[in-house]
Amino acid sequence: MTRPLRVGIVGLGTVGASVIRILDRQNEAVAQRGGRPVQVVAVSARDRAKDRGIDLSRFTWFDSPVDLAGAADVDCVVELVGGADGTALETVRTALSLGKHVVTANKALLAKHGLALAKLAEEKDVSLAFEASVAGGIPVIKTLREALPANRISRLYGILNGTCNYILSRMELEGLTFQECLKDAQRLGYAEADPTFDVEGFDTAHKLAILTSLAFGTEIDADAIYVEGISSIAPLDLAMAKELGFRIKLLGVAERTKTGIEQRVHPTMVPRTSSIAQVMGVTNAVTIDADAVRELTLIGPGAGGDATASAVVADIADVAAGHVQPLFGKPVAQLEKAPRAPMQRHEGGYYIRLTVHDRPGVAAGVATRMAEEDISLESILQKRSEVAATQDPHGRSGAPVSLVLITYAATEASIRSAVEKISRDGLIAEPPQVIRIERD
Amino acid sequence: MTRPLRVGIVGLGTVGASVIRILDRQNEAVAQRGGRPVQVVAVSARDRAKDRGIDLSRFTWFDSPVDLAGAADVDCVVELVGGADGTALETVRTALSLGKHVVTANKALLAKHGLALAKLAEEKDVSLAFEASVAGGIPVIKTLREALPANRISRLYGILNGTCNYILSRMELEGLTFQECLKDAQRLGYAEADPTFDVEGFDTAHKLAILTSLAFGTEIDADAIYVEGISSIAPLDLAMAKELGFRIKLLGVAERTKTGIEQRVHPTMVPRTSSIAQVMGVTNAVTIDADAVRELTLIGPGAGGDATASAVVADIADVAAGHVQPLFGKPVAQLEKAPRAPMQRHEGGYYIRLTVHDRPGVAAGVATRMAEEDISLESILQKRSEVAATQDPHGRSGAPVSLVLITYAATEASIRSAVEKISRDGLIAEPPQVIRIERD
Repeated sequence: MTRPLRVGIVGLGTVGASVIRILDRQNEAVAQRGGRPVQVVAVSARDRAKDRGIDLSRFTWFDSPVDLAGAADVDCVVELVGGADGTALETVRTALSLGKHVVTANKALLAKHGLALAKLAEEKDVSLAFEASVAGGIPVIKTLREALPANRISRLYGILNGTCNYILSRMELEGLTFQECLKDAQRLGYAEADPTFDVEGFDTAHKLAILTSLAFGTEIDADAIYVEGISSIAPLDLAMAKELGFRIKLLGVAERTKTGIEQRVHPTMVPRTSSIAQVMGVTNAVTIDADAVRELTLIGPGAGGDATASAVVADIADVAAGHVQPLFGKPVAQLEKAPRAPMQRHEGGYYIRLTVHDRPGVAAGVATRMAEEDISLESILQKRSEVAATQDPHGRSGAPVSLVLITYAATEASIRSAVEKISRDGLIAEPPQVIRIERD
Repeated sequence: MTRPLRVGIVGLGTVGASVIRILDRQNEAVAQRGGRPVQVVAVSARDRAKDRGIDLSRFTWFDSPVDLAGAADVDCVVELVGGADGTALETVRTALSLGKHVVTANKALLAKHGLALAKLAEEKDVSLAFEASVAGGIPVIKTLREALPANRISRLYGILNGTCNYILSRMELEGLTFQECLKDAQRLGYAEADPTFDVEGFDTAHKLAILTSLAFGTEIDADAIYVEGISSIAPLDLAMAKELGFRIKLLGVAERTKTGIEQRVHPTMVPRTSSIAQVMGVTNAVTIDADAVRELTLIGPGAGGDATASAVVADIADVAAGHVQPLFGKPVAQLEKAPRAPMQRHEGGYYIRLTVHDRPGVAAGVATRMAEEDISLESILQKRSEVAATQDPHGRSGAPVSLVLITYAATEASIRSAVEKISRDGLIAEPPQVIRIERD
């Protein structure tokens, strides 16, 4: 065999420690896949003294990640520090500039600096591999980049954040509120103390930006993504979804439309019979719609030390195999600068839940506003509370009841306009709930 | 760019024609992926005159596939003839011997001659790629070979035959018999005039043999596979499965057990909530259980011209990229000759449906025989026909009723022995139905 690939690891948290353990355990398999041995030679982390359950004495220790990136005997730098800027960026830039390969799990870095880093890697003819940055152990980057050259992809959507899927799954199965489930997720370590990044959809957006670029051969454009989180989802929405044959998932969706590339992250009603609807708990999934394969779905672990390390190690083996590929599937100069399809022009079905005053004429008023915006209704469901029905058999109490509308394909702009008018008409007692529907 | 990869295609059926159309349409994407252009230069098929809706005049025509394989200007031969021997084998052998790369969709060829062909490819340092041979458009070969070097795989199971899954899906959803669904499948072109190869599990077995070798790094061993088809499945079994929280799928299962590698194809009860249970119709799916990623499931089209061509084209692009890999993930000399785990020693849960005479003591007799074989029962379900109940309120008519047992983990040997004894005891009116349970 040829000389080993010498690896330096920056960041020794759960993933980093797991990468070392796996490279010990699977040494032979990795060498077979890579065509040569892989050898960790250097590590760097914040705390040298911390007990990680691994013998680090066999590796050269670096206090500075950037120094590690510059070390003469390191061929490939594995960046597991995280964060879009700072140490991570400096380490990756240094390594690439010196003609070293980089493997990273850092979605924020890619989403923000992906294009510049791709240029740098291309100039130096080295790999910058990032399978672990999206959907943990699912080989979705490899699939998009290598398995589908025969396909023109029309749409891609995925459950890319385990925290949100865990919360939505528990809310549905146990009838709990968002806040109750969030607390449990925090207790179990599935959610951070400040959960904003996960539950408001920003984590999903970073990952989506990366997948969009690969799927459509476009320059990464994270700022174009419309983002909405799951904190406004009520148990009632999940119950209504069930009744209507749907399930609610936080999806990242990228779609080629007439106006350009649409990228959006929002709670989504998906048909209960779809593959993606079956994905419960912290599991991730991605579905790719394309002309030749039609529909391809990958389901697997989205996070966790070993699952993420599995993707990192696969990338290291690819680097060892010496197969340098353009980051986003084609040379940077050939990436399209696709026009952004504005959210206002998104077209699709909508679930609209209105809390209306239970008075005669309210349903008619709502229906009229929808008609004015040229929105066709597929179904209407009115639910009175049991209490209200007992107290007021004629239904004229004015007590709030839920009125749920499912629309046929309509534009986001028309839906927003109709809902705004309905609000101004004084027909509703609470802010309206609007959830987009995604058909498979 | 470097000089193009010159491709010769043998076999111009649905898949072959689709490969040509896709290479026309996706020329740029394929070249980007492969790092150089891909150009079809030669074709061969049985009937030159047949209208395939493609202009063949731009290619050199060969009456003989073997002559095409030997043509000086062909770098890569795409074999789409099919069949384990004859033309396909001769074409592939000729191409490899002459140091040409080969891409094939031929599972029968691989299952029978995979090891010998792998040796030949290795000697000549060329690729023999076969993504299309298993599960059509699903990139399961690439995933097993390239995405999981960090993992020790413990089990792999899949729906690998669309015909069987279509039949079982329709039987369940519409309460039809096997024969009724088979006829429909034949009418719709999902099943052959002689459906034996599909419905008796042999097609699944060929594909499983290939996956097993990749998953466990073992020499391909198709003869070791225990094979059972779906023709004995009754609508009642599907109904009982539903009642018990299962769904019936024809699975190919490969598992590392204490005694060796277990390979089996049989109708299987899978939990209704598992990813694989959701896969209906002609769709295929593969689930991989491994130590680092835990569970990974890939779902997609298992057949069809375009989906299969998608896998063929991905392989062609990989060949163009010049990344020669060992066929089964490691050099032939390093493939293990794993001991075969005999079916008799398979351990798992079982569904046993007995048609017993409705007499006192029958259930006790059955339970005793199970106890003698040390088989623990998880549940027992006795169903009398409505008619019998009306005619004979004391339940002593002796009319046949269904007695369904679900066992805890037991060995195949003990189950067979118990069922045989029960038969000999004269307790049952019809041959027993035994379906293995696979937990996720």
